[in-house]
Amino acid sequence: MIGRLNHVAIAVPDLTAAAAQYANTLGADVGPPQDEPDHGVTVVFITLPNTKIELLYPLGENSPIAGFLEKNPSGGIHHICYEVEDIAEAALRLTTEGARVLGDGTPKIGAHGKPVLFLHPKDFNGTLIELEEV
Amino acid sequence: MIGRLNHVAIAVPDLTAAAAQYANTLGADVGPPQDEPDHGVTVVFITLPNTKIELLYPLGENSPIAGFLEKNPSGGIHHICYEVEDIAEAALRLTTEGARVLGDGTPKIGAHGKPVLFLHPKDFNGTLIELEEV
Repeated sequence: MIGRLNHVAIAVPDLTAAAAQYANTLGADVGPPQDEPDHGVTVVFITLPNTKIELLYPLGENSPIAGFLEKNPSGGIHHICYEVEDIAEAALRLTTEGARVLGDGTPKIGAHGKPVLFLHPKDFNGTLIELEEV
Repeated sequence: MIGRLNHVAIAVPDLTAAAAQYANTLGADVGPPQDEPDHGVTVVFITLPNTKIELLYPLGENSPIAGFLEKNPSGGIHHICYEVEDIAEAALRLTTEGARVLGDGTPKIGAHGKPVLFLHPKDFNGTLIELEEV
């Protein structure tokens, strides 16, 4: 069912510093910051030859990563995203097997404009997993 | 400098259950468990179309992931690994820019039989980064 690893998302306490570090110290291909007000984050995309890293920084009052950064002030890996061909089929299969889909259990439109869902980290080895339909 | 994302390593509290979950619930291509006694882990490789997931479980008395699982009993993402062409050049560049290489600062032979080094997570947004020469 799961396909490519679409991205690894890393929450960072200082987006400018983290972007500069990936560009200069690690020598990666780093894009400009992009505000995603509907998702409460500012994102910097790092393009690797085979996948992406997304640096996330809180935007606005109710950012979904504010609590994570409070608990992890140095930052940390927030989630990983696997691609699926059919998100509705994935949701049905997962819930049938007892996995918990976060929120009301239905896919939403994610930061890339595609349908996504998030799986409960307690059901997946402490890892927050996003599934994105591609 | 950094190239492909070689793998994402996830420490898991129950390797059999985690491997079965990736194979059955997530429908991924999951290999058999492989003991790596020199590195204190048993590993299950999950092959995605563009990269790998490595499920890690402690092996032996002084496993480097035992402490991580004590702190994170449900498991969690332990590290991510970027490929580099020249690990000695990478080590020099990183230490010159003030990043800390774990251990004595020199590359070691990693679990894939290739030279690796690990960077201090406090220097990289709370993320343990492995660099592997390919």
